[in-house]
Amino acid sequence: MGALTSRPDATYISARPSDVSGGIIARQEYAKVDINVGKDWFERIIVEAEIVYTRYPVKGVYPYLPYGAKLARNLEELVHERLEASGHEPIVFPSLIPLSLFKREVDFFEGFMPEALLASRKLSGEELEEPLVLRPTSEVPIYHVFAQLISSYRQLPLKVYQTVNVYRIETRATAPLLRLREVTLFNEAHVFCRSEGEARRIFEEAVELYRGIYDHLRIPYVIVKSPPWDLFPGAVENYDFITVLPDGKVLELASVINLGQKFARAFKVRFQDVDEEVKYAWQLCYGIGIDRMIAALVWLHGDSRGLVLHPDVAPIQVVVVAIPPEPELVEGARGAVASALSGYRVHVDDDTQRTPGWKFYYWEQRGVPVRVEVGRRELASSTLTLVDRVRFEKARVPLSSAAEEVERRMELVRGALWERAVTKVSEALRKRALLLDLDFDRGECEAVEEERGVSTLGKVVGSNFLPEECVGKMLFGKKY
Amino acid sequence: MGALTSRPDATYISARPSDVSGGIIARQEYAKVDINVGKDWFERIIVEAEIVYTRYPVKGVYPYLPYGAKLARNLEELVHERLEASGHEPIVFPSLIPLSLFKREVDFFEGFMPEALLASRKLSGEELEEPLVLRPTSEVPIYHVFAQLISSYRQLPLKVYQTVNVYRIETRATAPLLRLREVTLFNEAHVFCRSEGEARRIFEEAVELYRGIYDHLRIPYVIVKSPPWDLFPGAVENYDFITVLPDGKVLELASVINLGQKFARAFKVRFQDVDEEVKYAWQLCYGIGIDRMIAALVWLHGDSRGLVLHPDVAPIQVVVVAIPPEPELVEGARGAVASALSGYRVHVDDDTQRTPGWKFYYWEQRGVPVRVEVGRRELASSTLTLVDRVRFEKARVPLSSAAEEVERRMELVRGALWERAVTKVSEALRKRALLLDLDFDRGECEAVEEERGVSTLGKVVGSNFLPEECVGKMLFGKKY
Repeated sequence: MGALTSRPDATYISARPSDVSGGIIARQEYAKVDINVGKDWFERIIVEAEIVYTRYPVKGVYPYLPYGAKLARNLEELVHERLEASGHEPIVFPSLIPLSLFKREVDFFEGFMPEALLASRKLSGEELEEPLVLRPTSEVPIYHVFAQLISSYRQLPLKVYQTVNVYRIETRATAPLLRLREVTLFNEAHVFCRSEGEARRIFEEAVELYRGIYDHLRIPYVIVKSPPWDLFPGAVENYDFITVLPDGKVLELASVINLGQKFARAFKVRFQDVDEEVKYAWQLCYGIGIDRMIAALVWLHGDSRGLVLHPDVAPIQVVVVAIPPEPELVEGARGAVASALSGYRVHVDDDTQRTPGWKFYYWEQRGVPVRVEVGRRELASSTLTLVDRVRFEKARVPLSSAAEEVERRMELVRGALWERAVTKVSEALRKRALLLDLDFDRGECEAVEEERGVSTLGKVVGSNFLPEECVGKMLFGKKY
Repeated sequence: MGALTSRPDATYISARPSDVSGGIIARQEYAKVDINVGKDWFERIIVEAEIVYTRYPVKGVYPYLPYGAKLARNLEELVHERLEASGHEPIVFPSLIPLSLFKREVDFFEGFMPEALLASRKLSGEELEEPLVLRPTSEVPIYHVFAQLISSYRQLPLKVYQTVNVYRIETRATAPLLRLREVTLFNEAHVFCRSEGEARRIFEEAVELYRGIYDHLRIPYVIVKSPPWDLFPGAVENYDFITVLPDGKVLELASVINLGQKFARAFKVRFQDVDEEVKYAWQLCYGIGIDRMIAALVWLHGDSRGLVLHPDVAPIQVVVVAIPPEPELVEGARGAVASALSGYRVHVDDDTQRTPGWKFYYWEQRGVPVRVEVGRRELASSTLTLVDRVRFEKARVPLSSAAEEVERRMELVRGALWERAVTKVSEALRKRALLLDLDFDRGECEAVEEERGVSTLGKVVGSNFLPEECVGKMLFGKKY
């Protein structure tokens, strides 16, 4: 068993408190905020912060409420931007797949047999001509259609993506954002290549793309190569991005899958190459779940006061509270921040009934990275009082430099998020995961699984926080 | 029967050819472009321009290909922006609805009985504990959840929206973009109000919001109030936005629905009012289909050469073709437009094999509003040659004023789109619709339906192109 020590990358070391300029006029005790938050906290906070509704009457199905939907949309946009910047084009495919088409690739069909959902009749009782599978993922419809559209090497590589709902009725326990039966926001990319070498190169680019997204979001991850006996149905090689949550369970954050030519042969995805020979395409697919991304952000960045949201994806980056909450002060505050902080997603709390203390609690729980307080003194002196969501340091800054000071606090928050997340993930890994010097040997791995009550996650091929010497070891843990 | 004359609003009169400055160096005959395009054209062009794939093996189900998906996304963003600007908040709700919950509002249940789809078992054959309805629209899950979350008048009015896939397995014929069984991109808004008066006010705001969207897109519409015997299931009043396609069939573009308190009573959506009494909410829902919006844009704006896309939503606003297609000229063109047209969605066609003529045809068919041609002469003289997609007027303009000249041509295109669409819709209405002086009298309307083989669409309450005197008349036609 390997003890894993945390090693935050140098580029992520957070700004120190002294990096925040402006006269600090108050500081709440950092120690009052506990980052050691467990499963009860997670389930309470996603309800109280109105991320999802957790009592929907279908097991494993959770509607997003407005605050959660806005967070999800910002994450979706981040993923889409990065996919498009690297040449992926959007598509929108239906969720209904004819059963006969779904059976075309045998391993895939058998792999999804236990969890795919069927629609076979109408509410009126009338049977459909053919039962329809609700997509557990979209290989089948996409490969069937592009097989008809691809004819020449000039069209390759072809990279497409979509974010859609998918259905996976697994028998295991469900949990909001973590284990769903209707996955609300699944982003899947599908790639058609001319050669094995091109597929390999794009496989590596996809791994880098996902690395970039989770590095940006300050989420620690381990990349594991899956055991050959536990691949995605129809795949020849899988890499999974995983993280470990404070309850010790492993969460799959994304996966990159080399499909070789198995689907191409099943669906007849062929093209005429430059040498005029007709060849089968080489295929990849990769997926990243927005729902699970949110679970990781919530749990790994949060503290005992509630969410702490990464400033780049927070629905509200700056909340403004007038003290006292008088209409005239609210209007003054609105005018001041409109000019000083026009580049940010700012929300002015214009409720004139609630106390400032109530509002502080409310917006801290929702993880708004920076709070602005405006009173008579601020309006008279053309200043704003800023408070960050991590150290709760209060400083009065001139309106003229407010945007710059907000940015500095956001950078402080980004750094703190990384430190918190690494602390949590490292501790959970140390306590609940196993890292062994083993090869891919099914017998040996299964012996470990049985003895320790864990699953074989795979061989470590990379990480943004583990020491280099972990690469090549076999990782075991309990999966969500 | 009323003869309908077209009356384009003065604000929509297009720029005249002489409004486009720059020395016009060539002009193709406008007469060569026929705008009288029929159903065969529509079905061919959505395939050739790669909007959707039309041979998917489930009836009424059509995947969006990349070009179509980009157009759809731009339209979705337009709708979302307008909804958010008027206080609607996003949500993301699941498609799975327990059958028992779906039965809660009786009229709704019976109304959707013939077309809703059920999922009741897994691919493995295992039956679910309870059959799940696939949403035909999301009243049921949304009202059930918000009934639990709404408690006070302070939360009202509450306006939420989402764009999702919905399922409607109607028995009637299907057609790509027009009549779908899985509607890929259905935008639905749901509103909870404190009083009947508030609901009435927001009903009118929703009508204005949809008016604004279709006015902006240059789509002629008629707003009809539905016959009381043909309302949305569970509704007390409906307004439908309709247009008439060149084949004479009526397409519903959007609808605004007053639900009164029927759903509030069925789902117990209650709140404590300022007088401390507990009251039922008043509800509205309104929906706008992105798929049908695309159908209208394609068919009403297109011409015999293919699509003509509204510049504000076109995936590519400006396409750049190097003549001859040599790598060096392509690079020169890329540099020139990168600085001169940085504010636009520009695509540089960097294929060096195809002829300019082939490319002109290709991009005209895809409806790109403005083409830029770059040759040695343009590079040497710091000019660009611009060609618009409507009149095909070719003019050489200095790089320094290129952005302004492109904008002028886009305005020319916008104006032409409106003129074309009004011509097409007016003609179709004149030939295939009936406008009668009738009241809502079921017997009389059914007599007209039977005699003329049409449906009662409803009473005209507004339009962006019909003369004022049509308001109050009863409209009949054949529906898609």
